[in-house]
Amino acid sequence: MPERDDIVVMKFGGTSVAGPAEIKRAAGRIVAAREAGARVVAVLSARGKSTDELVSYAYEISDHPDPREMDMLLSTGERISCALASMAINDMGHKAVSLTGSQAGIVTDSSHTKARIVDVRADRIKETLSQEAIVLVAGFQGVSTDSRDVTTLGRGGSDTTAVALAAALGASVCEIYTDVAGVFTADPRIVPDARKLAVVSFDEMQEMSASGAKILQLRSVEYARNHGVPIHCRSSFEDLPGTLVLPESETMERPIVTAVTHSDDESRVTVVGVRDEPGVAGRIFGALADANVNVDVIIQNEPIGEGALADLSFTVSREDLTTATGVIDGLGDISNSVRTDERIGKVSIVGAGMRSHPGVAARVFEVLGEQRINIEMISTSPIKISCVIAADQVPDAVRALHAAFELGADAVRPEDPTGEHRPTVSP
Amino acid sequence: MPERDDIVVMKFGGTSVAGPAEIKRAAGRIVAAREAGARVVAVLSARGKSTDELVSYAYEISDHPDPREMDMLLSTGERISCALASMAINDMGHKAVSLTGSQAGIVTDSSHTKARIVDVRADRIKETLSQEAIVLVAGFQGVSTDSRDVTTLGRGGSDTTAVALAAALGASVCEIYTDVAGVFTADPRIVPDARKLAVVSFDEMQEMSASGAKILQLRSVEYARNHGVPIHCRSSFEDLPGTLVLPESETMERPIVTAVTHSDDESRVTVVGVRDEPGVAGRIFGALADANVNVDVIIQNEPIGEGALADLSFTVSREDLTTATGVIDGLGDISNSVRTDERIGKVSIVGAGMRSHPGVAARVFEVLGEQRINIEMISTSPIKISCVIAADQVPDAVRALHAAFELGADAVRPEDPTGEHRPTVSP
Repeated sequence: MPERDDIVVMKFGGTSVAGPAEIKRAAGRIVAAREAGARVVAVLSARGKSTDELVSYAYEISDHPDPREMDMLLSTGERISCALASMAINDMGHKAVSLTGSQAGIVTDSSHTKARIVDVRADRIKETLSQEAIVLVAGFQGVSTDSRDVTTLGRGGSDTTAVALAAALGASVCEIYTDVAGVFTADPRIVPDARKLAVVSFDEMQEMSASGAKILQLRSVEYARNHGVPIHCRSSFEDLPGTLVLPESETMERPIVTAVTHSDDESRVTVVGVRDEPGVAGRIFGALADANVNVDVIIQNEPIGEGALADLSFTVSREDLTTATGVIDGLGDISNSVRTDERIGKVSIVGAGMRSHPGVAARVFEVLGEQRINIEMISTSPIKISCVIAADQVPDAVRALHAAFELGADAVRPEDPTGEHRPTVSP
Repeated sequence: MPERDDIVVMKFGGTSVAGPAEIKRAAGRIVAAREAGARVVAVLSARGKSTDELVSYAYEISDHPDPREMDMLLSTGERISCALASMAINDMGHKAVSLTGSQAGIVTDSSHTKARIVDVRADRIKETLSQEAIVLVAGFQGVSTDSRDVTTLGRGGSDTTAVALAAALGASVCEIYTDVAGVFTADPRIVPDARKLAVVSFDEMQEMSASGAKILQLRSVEYARNHGVPIHCRSSFEDLPGTLVLPESETMERPIVTAVTHSDDESRVTVVGVRDEPGVAGRIFGALADANVNVDVIIQNEPIGEGALADLSFTVSREDLTTATGVIDGLGDISNSVRTDERIGKVSIVGAGMRSHPGVAARVFEVLGEQRINIEMISTSPIKISCVIAADQVPDAVRALHAAFELGADAVRPEDPTGEHRPTVSP
């Protein structure tokens, strides 16, 4: 239970506010937290598919919608959710006030459609909380510091709004409500005996988000980690505790492998015959970064023989593929040709215990080899091993790795060994 | 044609931005005005029925949606229109910037869902115009001066936004684009030979708007009159000039009757047996005004005989009926009972020339009598006569009066006798 006057930030995703029934259910959760004594700030996403609808309106008008205007358009969805939830809460006898991102003090840079939060000026939220009201904040949006324009934070940006507010307000927890029960050892749609994890560390969650786990947006995990904001991922459709995302503590058990994640919306770009001169790779990836393309795995083969040229391959999300090839074409005469492959997937294992256990990579390659799955690219971090494979082999790879590392049945993790980080609100 | 750097305000209603094709057509009009040399501020309504949709979302959640939250909800519709039109204009090679009511400097009081404009701080619009951009402003909304909340101006409020901006910017004209070609001598759906008027005076337009003409919202006409803003009502679907609404000039011809207007969404409240003491009527109409109920026609019969009580009848729009009866019930023991009649209509004739021509009222009663139409209540002004009649007799009454005052064929008005008030932009 929260201490009296603890601030709790609760974030509800699109499926959790999809229609009137869902909005009322979310309102009920919010009111329960308030009645348990917490001061509540709730961050809402746009209802269900409404953002997709708005995007399609834009493309009915223009093939290249102006980004500033795109933000003006898209920011309306979350405002609608907040106004409706606020009406529901007011009907339940509590005072609720909805705020736009701008009113909530979410100040961003001017990168329209993918703005970054540069400041949170939470005075109005604090003032409203002090008037005993529940505050509802439109997620995913802010106001640019220089031009006072509406900005959006990019897809999944509502998670970041919630974490940023939790940090700025010193909230005891940031609860992320979605249509799944928490963070699992693998996608339960692929692995039926996948297990819900009670606790994961920020490091692990960051690797999992980066490697395909959709439950939390990567940026929000980074933000939470940097500001030490405990996250509780849980279902808006059941009352059970979900998964806590916490700083790694001394006493926290570190299983070798915590989870298997995957992604099947990757694509690969191969720059064939890269000109053999210093700085070419820097120009390529600098230009991609300028175009806001997130490059994931990179490999470059060693040219063999006199005058041979290198091939450079990298993966990007499929939606960035056209931008990526456009950027490389724009660099002019740097290579012989560019090849793309849209049917690329990736499977990863993540676990904080890998730091102190060598040999995990070898076991991963062995397991995939037994399944006759060809590994096309490899990328590792101290707590993650990712293998790029054919997209249609991803489900088999996930199941084989989940079984090989015994994530389903055995490897039981304690609920929360520290006892310090229980979810603070369980309406 | 506008002078170089003349400011023109163009307002497009819901049907004029209903879908992608309509939005592009409106964008084309705006661009044409810009290319003709004007600096353009366009005010847009929400697309088609989208405001009704938003209202229905609210009532799915709550029977009495919180007014502040209703405004947060409803204000999104116009923002969507503006963002989309802005994308279309940017695609046509012109720079366009959309602004919310708040960004445009529309400052209002705090009467949510029916706020009044108290100030227009047009600095940001002027700054944006000076950067050679077309400015699109979300109609119908503002920001409250005290609490910095989003407010809306009530139905039809976008007309008022447009006129207020035209006044604040010293625009040469405020063009109101709708799905009708201008102001007619009667509703052409009822009277096939109704004629489009080239010019009407503010006085006439005000009476016409008040008595049922839907083309311009009453408040916007009052605002235009008070600030001397010429209005041009025209169709967004054809290029012909529409109707100019102008101050009455010395040389302007004043026909006795300019137009027949009607309304069939009225209802009547009769307070039966009003307590016979001073101040009761004041209490009733004061309380109705506090509840923002617009009372139209009022009559009170003279009690006959010792101790007899008066009956007080008045008409209100049908959507205000429940509020009105609730207000009277709330006043306690002031009468014996309250009766309501929802099937009430009203027919009116309007004409600046009536000031100097007595006998018009008599002719109206005679015409309606010939049609065997019972007149239940009468209300007059120097340039208007209104008769409350049964709702189902309204069309017959309109046709009879239009014919009797020869509004269709003869009574030809000069296009614009002063020659000073031609529409300044004809894209």
